[in-house]
Parts: sequence; C-alpha cells; structure tokens
Amino acid sequence: METVADFLRRKYWGWGYQKGPLDASLTDTLIAFLRAGFGIEAEAPLALPDQNSITLPEPRFPLPAALANWITSEQEIRLHHCFGKSYRDAWRCAHGQFDNPPDYVAFPTSEEQLIELMAFAGANRIKLIPYGGGSSVVGGIEPPARSRSGGVITVNMLHFNKVLEVDTESRCARIQAGTYGPDLEQQLKPHGLTLRHFPQSFEFSTLGGWIATRAGGHYAMQYTHIDDFVESVRVVTPKGVVQTRRLPGSGAGPSEERLFLGSEGTLGIITEAWVRLQSIPKYKASATVGFQDYGDGVEACRQLSQSGLQPSNARFIGRGEALFMGLGDGSLDILILGCESSTFPVSQKLNDCLSITTACGGINLSAPAPETGNQRDDKADTWKQAFITVPYLRDELVRRGLIVETFETAITWDKFEHFNTQILTAANRAIERLCGKGFITCRFTHLYPDGPAPYYTVMAQGNGKDDLQRWDEIKRAISDVIINEGGTITHHHAVGKDHREHYLRQASPLFVAMLESAKTSVDPDQILNPGVLLKSPGSQAD
Amino acid sequence: METVADFLRRKYWGWGYQKGPLDASLTDTLIAFLRAGFGIEAEAPLALPDQNSITLPEPRFPLPAALANWITSEQEIRLHHCFGKSYRDAWRCAHGQFDNPPDYVAFPTSEEQLIELMAFAGANRIKLIPYGGGSSVVGGIEPPARSRSGGVITVNMLHFNKVLEVDTESRCARIQAGTYGPDLEQQLKPHGLTLRHFPQSFEFSTLGGWIATRAGGHYAMQYTHIDDFVESVRVVTPKGVVQTRRLPGSGAGPSEERLFLGSEGTLGIITEAWVRLQSIPKYKASATVGFQDYGDGVEACRQLSQSGLQPSNARFIGRGEALFMGLGDGSLDILILGCESSTFPVSQKLNDCLSITTACGGINLSAPAPETGNQRDDKADTWKQAFITVPYLRDELVRRGLIVETFETAITWDKFEHFNTQILTAANRAIERLCGKGFITCRFTHLYPDGPAPYYTVMAQGNGKDDLQRWDEIKRAISDVIINEGGTITHHHAVGKDHREHYLRQASPLFVAMLESAKTSVDPDQILNPGVLLKSPGSQAD
Repeated sequence: METVADFLRRKYWGWGYQKGPLDASLTDTLIAFLRAGFGIEAEAPLALPDQNSITLPEPRFPLPAALANWITSEQEIRLHHCFGKSYRDAWRCAHGQFDNPPDYVAFPTSEEQLIELMAFAGANRIKLIPYGGGSSVVGGIEPPARSRSGGVITVNMLHFNKVLEVDTESRCARIQAGTYGPDLEQQLKPHGLTLRHFPQSFEFSTLGGWIATRAGGHYAMQYTHIDDFVESVRVVTPKGVVQTRRLPGSGAGPSEERLFLGSEGTLGIITEAWVRLQSIPKYKASATVGFQDYGDGVEACRQLSQSGLQPSNARFIGRGEALFMGLGDGSLDILILGCESSTFPVSQKLNDCLSITTACGGINLSAPAPETGNQRDDKADTWKQAFITVPYLRDELVRRGLIVETFETAITWDKFEHFNTQILTAANRAIERLCGKGFITCRFTHLYPDGPAPYYTVMAQGNGKDDLQRWDEIKRAISDVIINEGGTITHHHAVGKDHREHYLRQASPLFVAMLESAKTSVDPDQILNPGVLLKSPGSQAD
Repeated sequence: METVADFLRRKYWGWGYQKGPLDASLTDTLIAFLRAGFGIEAEAPLALPDQNSITLPEPRFPLPAALANWITSEQEIRLHHCFGKSYRDAWRCAHGQFDNPPDYVAFPTSEEQLIELMAFAGANRIKLIPYGGGSSVVGGIEPPARSRSGGVITVNMLHFNKVLEVDTESRCARIQAGTYGPDLEQQLKPHGLTLRHFPQSFEFSTLGGWIATRAGGHYAMQYTHIDDFVESVRVVTPKGVVQTRRLPGSGAGPSEERLFLGSEGTLGIITEAWVRLQSIPKYKASATVGFQDYGDGVEACRQLSQSGLQPSNARFIGRGEALFMGLGDGSLDILILGCESSTFPVSQKLNDCLSITTACGGINLSAPAPETGNQRDDKADTWKQAFITVPYLRDELVRRGLIVETFETAITWDKFEHFNTQILTAANRAIERLCGKGFITCRFTHLYPDGPAPYYTVMAQGNGKDDLQRWDEIKRAISDVIINEGGTITHHHAVGKDHREHYLRQASPLFVAMLESAKTSVDPDQILNPGVLLKSPGSQAD
C-alpha cells in the first residue's frame, strides 16, 4: 500500500513515476511524426528541474507542537504538492516556477487529526487543500495566490489507504478515501471483486479524489462516472462528520451522496466510502470497426448508445488521433468495441453490436470472434498501451517546447455535429493565429443514450516563452464555444480553478447560490479549497 | 390532455376515478377471503361523503384582483385538495374530516403567474403547496395545521400539460411538469418513444410530481427511479428561475438536477424537464418462477441483480401476497420475470435469467418461451391487473372499517434476512396487540446489485373509531425498525409530513443543515410546502 516513500518516487514535475514505462525512442518517433505531418518543430529538451537549485519560500506561519508530528515543511514533499498534472502545471515545472508551494503538507492518519487540523485552520485563517493523488488537470489542488491567504496546508490523504470491510453478499466495500487505484483493486481481488473504475489516472489517483471530482472510468457505457458506484460517503467537515447511509436505492429527500460527488474538496474531506463492486469479468470479446465517413461512425455510436446492448467499451477515435495512436494508417475513423461479463458469454452481444456498426457502414477490421466469447483484439491492446503512456509522452513534449493539452465535454446527439464543427473551427483558428502550426483531434470517451462525451487533444508549435498565455487563449476560445453551444465545461476532469469561470457561466446562478449557502453552513470560515469550483466570498478573483 | 373537468371526475375522497374499473363483486370476494383466512371482519360500508353536507371553513384571506382569475375557492375544488391518497387520507375522507382544506387552489398557466403568486405569498405569510396529481401517500400535499400558517394556496399544475419539444436524435423530450402519465405517453407515441416510467400512480400523477418525489417506476432493475431519466430541470423559486443544462453526462460540480430530485416542493415548483426517453419495446418475454423456500427466492433475486442481465422486471412476491393477488395457491413464493428490448430478441436473455433461478431451486411455472422472443405470461398479466385495481379495493376496505396500508424501503442484501424478520416481528406484534387480527405481506418492487426494495402490505381488523391512532402506532413500530436496522424510510413513496421524523433520524444532520441553508437561499420567507421533508424553522412540530 502506498507510502510516503512510494509517493516520492513519482515526478514532482510531471506525470507518473520518475522511472516511467516510456521508451525514449518513442519520443523521437513522435517528434519526427509531428515534424513530417504538421511541420511542428521540437526544441532541445529543457533540463529536468533540480531540487537542489530550487529555494522554496519559507512557511508563513508556525505549527503548534500538537500538529508537528504529522505535518511537514520538508522541501521535497512541498515540491510534490505545488502542482497538479495539467499542461500548465508541466510547463511551470519545466520552467522552474515553484514559487507558490503550500506552507506545509499534512499526512493525517485519523479523522481526529483532520478535525484538529480544521479547528486550527479555522482559528488561524489557514486554508486547507484536500489532496488525493494530485492528478488534477484543472488546478484543483494548487494553492491559492499567496496574497489571498495567510497560509496553506495541503492535506495528503495517503495514509487512509485500506479496504476496511467487504460485503460479498451485496458486492460492496468500505474503503478509505486515500486508497490508490492499484491498492484498492489488489485488496479487493482475493474476494473476486473489482470496482472496475479505471480512469486514465488510475495508478495515480484515489477513491476520494474520484468521488470529489466525479471521475470518469475507462468503460464507455452504463458505468462511466464514479457517481453510480458510491453507496455512501463519510466526510469530515469543519462542523463535524457527515456519514450517509448505505442504501441500494432511496427516495428519501435529495441524494446526500450526490451533493458531495463533484464538491472538489470545498465541502469537506472525504475519508471513506462504501462503493458498489462487480464480479471480475470472465468473458470478454472486443472488435475494431473502421469508418470511411466520420458521420457514419457518429451515427453508429448513437445507435449503439440507444440499443440497450451496453457494450463495456465503445471508444470512437477520429482518424487523426487513430493514426497518432498507432491504430491504422489514418484513412479510417476507428471504433473499438468491447463486451464483458462475469456470468454469460458475450460473443452474441458483440455480434449484435457489430450488426449495428455494419448497417451504419462500418468495416469490421477484426478476425471473427470465436464462440467462446473470450477474444482480445490487438487494436484494443494497442489503444490500452497508448492510453497509459501518452501522459508520459506529454511531459517530454512540453520539455521540448510544444503545447500539448486535452479538454473534454459532453453534448446531446442533436447538437453534436454543429458543436464539433464549431469547436474544431475555433481551435484551429486560435492555433493558427497564435502558434502557426498545430492540430486538434477528437475521440469519444463515453457514450450515453442522449449524447457522446467528446475528448479533444491539441498539439501546437510552442516558442518556449509565452506558451502558457497562448494556450490560455486557445483554451478560452474553445471553452467559450463549449458554453455557448450547450456543452459542459467538463465531463470528467472536474472544474478546479481552471474551469471555474466557465463553470459559473454554465451552472444556474441560483444553484450556485444554494451550493454556496450549503458550503457556508459546514465551512463558515471558508477554509476548504478556496477558489476551486466556487469563488471565495467577497472576491472577484481567487 | 387533463383539464379541470377531468380532474374533478376523480374521487376527492380516495383513489382514482369516481367511476373506477373495480367490479363490486371483487370487494365481496376479498372480504370473504379475509374473513376465512384471517378472521378479519368487515363492517357495513360507510356512506360516501356527500359534498352538499360538507361545510368548508372560509378562506382566511382575500385574494388580490390580479390573482383571482386563476385562483379559486370553489368548494368542490378545495375538497379535492385536502388530502393525498394514503390510508390516513382515505380514513379521514370516509369519516368526513374535511376541516383543513387549502384556502384557495391556484391553476397557473404560466411561469409569470407562479412568480406573481410567490411574491404575493412571500409578502403575506401565505404558504404554497405544489400539487401534481395529488397521489402522495405520505402527507406531501396536505396543508399544514391551520394554527401554523396565515393561509394556504395549493398550486395545481395541471395546465402545464404539454410535451413542448421532442429531440428524436437524442431520444429526449422537453415536457411540462404538470403532464399526467397517460397524456405524456400519448404525446410521445407518434415519435415511437416512451418515457417508460410507470409508477402505480401512473394515471394520477405527473412528471413534476415524479421528479419532486423521486418516484419509482414499474420496472425492477436498471431504470427504477425517475432520477436517471432527468436530463435537466426548470424550477421556479421565490428568488427566480433555475434552468439546468441539457447534458448527457457531466462532471462539473455536484449534480444540479439531483438537488431538486426529492426536494418535494420545498425548493421551488418544477415547471419543465428534459427527460431521457426510450424506443418502444418490440420484443418482450416473461416467465413466472415459483420457490418452495423463501430464502431460495431471495438468493435468486440477489444473483439476478448481480448478473448483469438486467431483466426489465423481476418482481418477487411472497406467497401470502401471491395468494392475495391471484398468483397461485399460496404454496409458493412467486418471481415474475420480464425482459424487453426495442432492438433485439430477448428470449436468450430470459433463458439466462431462468438458468439462474433454476440453479437457485426455482420452478419455472410458464410454458417455454417461443423463439420469437415475444411471449406474454398470463401470471404477469394477472399481476398487472391487480397492480391497477388494488388501490381502488383499498378504499372499499377502508369504508368497511379495515386498516389497510403499505410501506416500502430498501436494504442491502447482507442485512435483508435479519431486517425482514425484524420488520415482520414488529409488525405482527403491533397488529396483534392493537388490532387482534391482521397480517403483513411482502414483495420486492425493485432489485439493485446491492440490495432489494421490499414493499410491505398490512391489513388488520379495524374498529371504525381509533384506527388512525392504531395505524400510527403500527407504523411507528415498523418505521423504528427500518431506521434502527439500516433501511431507508422510503424507497419511492417520498417523505412528506408522515415520514419526516424518521427521515430526520435517517439523514445526516449536517446534510439536513446544508439542505436547509440551500432552501433558505431561494425561499427566504419559507413559503414552500412547510413541514414537508424539513421542519419549519423555529418549530418543533409542523
């Protein structure tokens, strides 16, 4: 189970482990590809940041002795808590901008300590940042500007790392919120159970983080957001502990869990949850389908989403991104389909899915599924591998001066075509105007009966100087389209600080007022994650 | 589409239409059955209430001229808005206790009128009761005690009765909140679409009511509560209009819709919603399975719920209730299974379900399903007919002095056996102590992977005098077990006034504080549905 030592084996300046799985030649291949295909030129990589040459500002306040055992101001640890994992974060790390660390990092081991910490923070105008795996790509765990608080303590929950109880009859488990994905699955495996929630950040994120941000898993349909898996939550707030009741379903008042799902650390610190598990799948089948016409592929996705077949996976990857991911030669849009079951063979279900895609003009690129209903498709494996290594590659490109970022949304089917055109137009215009060279690609990460969740990747020529400002401009152009054309500013990356402005344009103002009132009733001193999701009271900015 | 005239064709003193579908001989048969089986004796029926002999108290305040066009104090209309449809309500009607009507009933036709009405109410200490179909069985639309308010206007939303837009691509529709079930389906049918949400109250309840109370539909799995069908809501509050965004999925902050789902008219009046629809099923298959051992049936339900097969229906009816419903001779517990699809035959799915039930010791009582995958089982039809007529029968029994009521909950599988035993013990003890004769039966209305939603029916010998007090005692004994043993005080009937005390024991006190703060931010004068769900501020009682 995750320890502080494990934690420190990661990069403080980017994604994943210091010794990651990335083959160095892959970076070179990609750079050659970007040059040949798009004329994008990489620079020589910036040197990795050197801890010894970084001087962090001193903590702005002393710690009382009672807290000092489990709260630290060690430089290495503070460095790890300066940033999340967005492009903005990677860029600032690559350029050594570690000028706004938290004053301290707390590693609580009990709820009592959290309560003590909140009391100290409330009495001393200290802000607390709840911290799971730190994989936020939206500024969700970054300290507020130094001028805006008397001090900041980041609360790293990694000692809350156990599966406390497993109820095999109901297929549920009580799990501490700081448990990382792999630790969680490892502790469940002996029971033949799995949470089966695999966000791209799986290795580097925690159950509590997933709940606080309404994380989206790897599976495209039916089980997408963590929301549906949460049976009950336990949350420490400055006013006391919230424990909701384990219930398979209820009609008693508004859902208590759903108020904390997506609260992004602003209402309290999640310490535990009962989550709904699944049996480990025994039958699997997958296939790859190619489309010559993008609209046909979209239509196939729409029909699949409304078919009731609910394949576990249905990831539709535009040809530009497919090429980039090693899925074919870029002449076809690619749909990766997967079906899974713990109880019955799934080859018939896969065939039913394929009958829909074929009728929509799709070409089945896989060998026929064998009768066993247990078949892997090599493109699905290629995709999975790329899914894991891409964030590492991103860091390497950022060090070489490129702009690389993703954004994601969801939109109803009726609006998708126009929406997508507007997004691509706005992005391409902004890329061309600001960077000269670059491109945008799209895939669907999740499919709902009423619409897809499109996920866009932008790569553009950087200049190593004002790339953050230029990316902010591109991002703003895109975000404006998302909000103006009816999308959501985030399907599963969360709001954080980066999306707050557009979130507040998206959300109903009265709902926001209700949420602020609810927050104030449990966090009257406004100590929890200021500037994330909501504006700090009385502030126009942070 | 529903008009005021249609509305007045219903009973103001009980369930359904004045000219209902009930064959009078059925009441006699049932009474004979209750006498023979349980020694319960019915009395001669009380006369139906006579409007002409009822004198309602005068309205306590005058209406301004601007509101008088669409707000009425007509006796007949006020009579219809005194009560919901619970046993307590039917009893009070049967005994002519119409002493607490609303002062007026409003029939708004626009949001502007609602805003005007809320301004009037806020300025004059008037309380407003949002009213859909009035089918509440939990005191959700009953005026507060007369001593506790200066006046009450019930807001009947029946003029908000249109499907305003249909988006066939995304399979969604924008529907006004006052639209009754049949009107809603009739307007969707030409589009080949259905909401497919069929609560027992379907004919007599509205979309807005379903959303406000988190109604449960007829289908046992996957699509149970209305919650999952709500894509966005529009709500008029005293502070203005909340309009949430149509999104297939989102991770931007806590779900806005979920705060209004289950708000029971305390946060605002729902005027519209975009809802997710389904294609009309083309393939159907159903079967009936009998169990000699109740535990085997429960285990079959558990395995089905976790199989991923998700039959549309899986209603497990204890042998006592099965006998009562005309499903066999009472020697077997009965599981009614149904599968439906709009795209592919379902006979294989039904067979897979049956392989689970057979392995658990179930006996398939149906003829084998034909290959077409389009087969009706006669027991399923018997059940459906009983489902519709039972509330009418209830009224007849109440007029004859019997105590007849239902309650419902949900509980995780690990706790069910003990929970159920405790419920039955508490109920039987209370029935015996208070009534001498009576019984309790159980069915599962919904199945979740982590637990069932048991639904209990109580019938007991009444005495025509203090039956309400005696039922309250029985209900309290049962509700205490529900809360103490980990259930929910309601799975889909809502909280209203009747369950409030136990809801406030169930919910986390800090969540309730957050909800109260959220309410106060949009309803500062506390005009909306006081005493429902939450206590009125500063009050220990209403």
